[in-house]
Amino acid sequence: MTYALLKTIDDPADLRKLDRRQLQTLAEELRAYVLESVSQTGGHLSSNLGTVELTIALHYAFHTPEDRIVWDVGHQSYPHKILTGRRDRMSTLRQWGGISGFPRRDESAYDTFGTAHSSTSISAALGMALGARTLGDKRVSIAVIGDGAMSAGMAFEAMNNAGVYKDLPLVVVLNDNDMSISPPVGALNRHLARLLSGQFYAATKKGIERVLSVAPPVLEFAKRFEEHAKGMVGPATLFEEFGFNYIGPIDGHDLNALVPTLQNIRQRALEGSGPIFLHVVTKKGQGYKLAEADPILYHGPGKFDPAEGIRPSGKPARKTYTQVFGDWLCDMAAADKRLVGITPAMREGSGMVEFEKRFPDRYYDVGIAEQHAVTFAGGLACEGLKPVVAIYSTFLQRGYDQLIHDVALQNLPVVFALDRAGLVGADGATHAGAYDIAFLRCIPNMMVATPCDENECRQLLTTAFHFDGPSAVRYPRGSGPGAAIAPALEPLPLGKGEVRRESAARKGQRVAFLAFGSMVQPALGAAEALDATVANMRFVKPLDVELVKTLAREHDYLVTVEEGCVMGGAGSAVLEALSEAGIDVPVLQLGLPDRFIDHGDPAFLLSQSGLDAKGIETSVRQRFGLGQAPVAVATRAA
Amino acid sequence: MTYALLKTIDDPADLRKLDRRQLQTLAEELRAYVLESVSQTGGHLSSNLGTVELTIALHYAFHTPEDRIVWDVGHQSYPHKILTGRRDRMSTLRQWGGISGFPRRDESAYDTFGTAHSSTSISAALGMALGARTLGDKRVSIAVIGDGAMSAGMAFEAMNNAGVYKDLPLVVVLNDNDMSISPPVGALNRHLARLLSGQFYAATKKGIERVLSVAPPVLEFAKRFEEHAKGMVGPATLFEEFGFNYIGPIDGHDLNALVPTLQNIRQRALEGSGPIFLHVVTKKGQGYKLAEADPILYHGPGKFDPAEGIRPSGKPARKTYTQVFGDWLCDMAAADKRLVGITPAMREGSGMVEFEKRFPDRYYDVGIAEQHAVTFAGGLACEGLKPVVAIYSTFLQRGYDQLIHDVALQNLPVVFALDRAGLVGADGATHAGAYDIAFLRCIPNMMVATPCDENECRQLLTTAFHFDGPSAVRYPRGSGPGAAIAPALEPLPLGKGEVRRESAARKGQRVAFLAFGSMVQPALGAAEALDATVANMRFVKPLDVELVKTLAREHDYLVTVEEGCVMGGAGSAVLEALSEAGIDVPVLQLGLPDRFIDHGDPAFLLSQSGLDAKGIETSVRQRFGLGQAPVAVATRAA
Repeated sequence: MTYALLKTIDDPADLRKLDRRQLQTLAEELRAYVLESVSQTGGHLSSNLGTVELTIALHYAFHTPEDRIVWDVGHQSYPHKILTGRRDRMSTLRQWGGISGFPRRDESAYDTFGTAHSSTSISAALGMALGARTLGDKRVSIAVIGDGAMSAGMAFEAMNNAGVYKDLPLVVVLNDNDMSISPPVGALNRHLARLLSGQFYAATKKGIERVLSVAPPVLEFAKRFEEHAKGMVGPATLFEEFGFNYIGPIDGHDLNALVPTLQNIRQRALEGSGPIFLHVVTKKGQGYKLAEADPILYHGPGKFDPAEGIRPSGKPARKTYTQVFGDWLCDMAAADKRLVGITPAMREGSGMVEFEKRFPDRYYDVGIAEQHAVTFAGGLACEGLKPVVAIYSTFLQRGYDQLIHDVALQNLPVVFALDRAGLVGADGATHAGAYDIAFLRCIPNMMVATPCDENECRQLLTTAFHFDGPSAVRYPRGSGPGAAIAPALEPLPLGKGEVRRESAARKGQRVAFLAFGSMVQPALGAAEALDATVANMRFVKPLDVELVKTLAREHDYLVTVEEGCVMGGAGSAVLEALSEAGIDVPVLQLGLPDRFIDHGDPAFLLSQSGLDAKGIETSVRQRFGLGQAPVAVATRAA
Repeated sequence: MTYALLKTIDDPADLRKLDRRQLQTLAEELRAYVLESVSQTGGHLSSNLGTVELTIALHYAFHTPEDRIVWDVGHQSYPHKILTGRRDRMSTLRQWGGISGFPRRDESAYDTFGTAHSSTSISAALGMALGARTLGDKRVSIAVIGDGAMSAGMAFEAMNNAGVYKDLPLVVVLNDNDMSISPPVGALNRHLARLLSGQFYAATKKGIERVLSVAPPVLEFAKRFEEHAKGMVGPATLFEEFGFNYIGPIDGHDLNALVPTLQNIRQRALEGSGPIFLHVVTKKGQGYKLAEADPILYHGPGKFDPAEGIRPSGKPARKTYTQVFGDWLCDMAAADKRLVGITPAMREGSGMVEFEKRFPDRYYDVGIAEQHAVTFAGGLACEGLKPVVAIYSTFLQRGYDQLIHDVALQNLPVVFALDRAGLVGADGATHAGAYDIAFLRCIPNMMVATPCDENECRQLLTTAFHFDGPSAVRYPRGSGPGAAIAPALEPLPLGKGEVRRESAARKGQRVAFLAFGSMVQPALGAAEALDATVANMRFVKPLDVELVKTLAREHDYLVTVEEGCVMGGAGSAVLEALSEAGIDVPVLQLGLPDRFIDHGDPAFLLSQSGLDAKGIETSVRQRFGLGQAPVAVATRAA
């Protein structure tokens, strides 16, 4: 495809110069462009194919960037990026120095609010709308949010708050695309399904005919959904209860429906209609048959040939930690009937597909609802069950109060399986699991473990499961060093690390690494060059203080290494232990620096933070004035 | 009153032996007992007076403790405590070694889930209900939740999740008592108001007549609310949309309504009716005229004479930090039009009453919705406004992810005014602001300041306001040392501490305190005895590293002191700085220990943690082997 029309669009002002009849062609080119570029870079596909028309219509109908569009989560923002001056940079997507896979304020004036975690858009758009009002600016603020994201408490809080502002130019566009994918997990999904089935479709509601009548096909579409209606008249939708004017459902792939509806909505919003809720129905993967058929497979693919589709990779890759967890969960559940597994809407990402199949009665997908997930687990634990909450490190931030107040304070035995701890690569700073060690270890009663390989991950999950209190096992994204996994379910001794390598260096040059989790491997690499001792600490809390003391006594320099923030991290726990013991020994703390780290190749990012073997070696030499070759040679000779 | 009947009730089994006609007498005695005991100990009053009949009816109708009652927040749990064997211990309420003001699992089998933070009860009760089902236990789980708490996202998440379990014996009792107090801040409150006005009252819904007809007065009550109805038939309430069977509204002070309704509900729940939502209308302060007239004044009073009521204290007490903040907020708002103030439903507690009066258009009470509050502030900041979020330290835990992902990552200038940082006294561990330093300082871009007195609090709030990024100013509950407050709005130099006292001790015995916030005063006290240097560090982040280095060079021992957890706290920041600078100096870290600290007198609790002047002195002497008298004498002579 030559993208003849698309290439003329360098920003939405160009778009708005087009005749409405040209938009269909533009949509075809834009969809093809999304498919082509994602197939070449990897990234999110299904959700972006689903929002091509909606994105065009939004920028066509609204005066962006003066009107503010906030894209919830941002998985659907590629068409938006392409239309807002970043078409040619799509080849750099999610790569170091390239554009982000999410909206970012520092990337474009059209990215009004950075997103990535779910369900923030209504809060942000409400803030913008009230901010504009305070400053006397006439503009519309629009949140575009998926039906999954609507189920989070935060979206509810924002809706509950927004509905009271009777004349505020705020628009919430619900991008309802979940119907055909996973079974609805909550009451809200059921409500949406009923809206679509027509039973609740408020055809006679004041105002809606006026909006829809400007576009007869829209009315047709809406009426089609009404076929099953039983003659009921006008019951309010959930969204009307919240003080929004509900409009819809309309076909999110029909530009002849979208454009006039949105134009009309903009007009009404500026005239003081108050918050408007537009219900748009789209299809994930729209226009690419393979993605339509399996939107989950095409949710976030790597590179692939669009003509062929995603091919199963030939040789089986190393097991990811996610798979290690999934296997352990099934085995442990088979061994102990009290185990129940909880996920806040991350069945695939957290490796729980098999668990759900085998133990459907002990599997709980609570929706995008991290706060509830944690306290719900607490309730289960009160009845004597053993809940395992599978959650990404970055998303546990959402359940932090519940972890403290409902779980740790009551010392309930809940296991938090923290996936994606450390840097995450292409998803970037929003998804980094950089802070969990710092924010967890300060909480009384918590146990925090950091497995160094796949086998130890399984062992530490078992340890956590047998621990009579709250525990977290943090493991990184992707695969580990490839350790053989023993099938047994054996716990490791609580709060005990192990020495993996002993230094034979001479007095004055003896270095010991106190390495946590994923940093044990690179520390071992650096230790070869430095002839250093390496301890695999295993536990951040309880810390193996005896081991710390022994290492301090027997070495001249200590080096802590962790894939987490240095500030308040595991290294600081070591400093605290040394200080308490009154031991003076030079300590170098290595870990993630005190800044947000952008998206990029995971290995590159680690190396850039000095957390590969070479970087670690260099930092140690520089800090302690240990020369290059002589040390290594001398110590090896000794 | 002799409490003749109440004294025969040592647990709910005794209660259930009573004839239903005796319950009214019991209610009168119980209400009088609540009033008498709270007037003698201080504690929560209005909410407890409002739930006397509901509590009796719940324990009478349900088979507690086999059936589980979870009291949301727990401000209303005193009648429950009195009926469940703790009548005689009410005199120890909220005191060290006495019973807690909240439900606690370790206090009674009837306290099925510890509460205090809002909106956790439905999640916990749902967990219990599904736990019981998994184990094959036949029991009903009941969440009792106020209308304010229902507005939090977490309650929504739990409702959304619960409604899908079609036959689960789960009951949510909505204690709707807010009508007469504050103006409704959200759509949910409006919905409840409409339910009460009858417009939405679903009199014809299937099942409800059956339930209500067992108790004709209930039906009467419900029908009375229908007077204003416009002949509409059967629109679903919000709660029915969520898959609950909605019953109500019923009069929460009418035992003849409550008891049969609850008995019937229990029956239906066990028969597999699925989740039931009972809407009960109560009056805060019920039965005590003064509290009915001013439920906010009587929400959490100290000791008072019930006959006289609360008297204004004679001499004006020292200003609390809350008042210092409230004054600053008004002055800063007058000076800068961009300032907007945000509270998650804590107008009184956070000192924003005056601000709301003077700047109503720049005041936002978003409801109990901490997640939304933070991101909403972010949205306002994007438009160029300067949001100040007033929030208790312990409640910021609820907005932690939003602070990281929506505010800090985008480096937005939002000021977090953290009240109740440190120990809080009678409210106990659930409300302690013990972790904020640890969980905030690890976040990039954050500024974290710890004022040592009232004047510095004002200065550091001004500093934060002018800081071009996210900032937190943490100050303790209650009043400070009584510093004179300069009216100017002058910032202090960013990241700079000050030396408040210089040691003249001889070499080898020179101690320097690095004190943060509220610990500057006791450190000064200890320093007199030790002839130590005292630095008021002011900032945890950016830490005054130059000052740390200077102090380390000029002293033999450093002591960090903070009213926050030692693990990962400000002292650890000092250790990190010393480690990075390669400075070896013995450091003693003082702060809150790694355990949850119970309720009690604030001064006693601090002393128990060794955080008064004497305790600090003792710790320093013990740790560094500094003798008692000689040190002080010798250094003063020198």
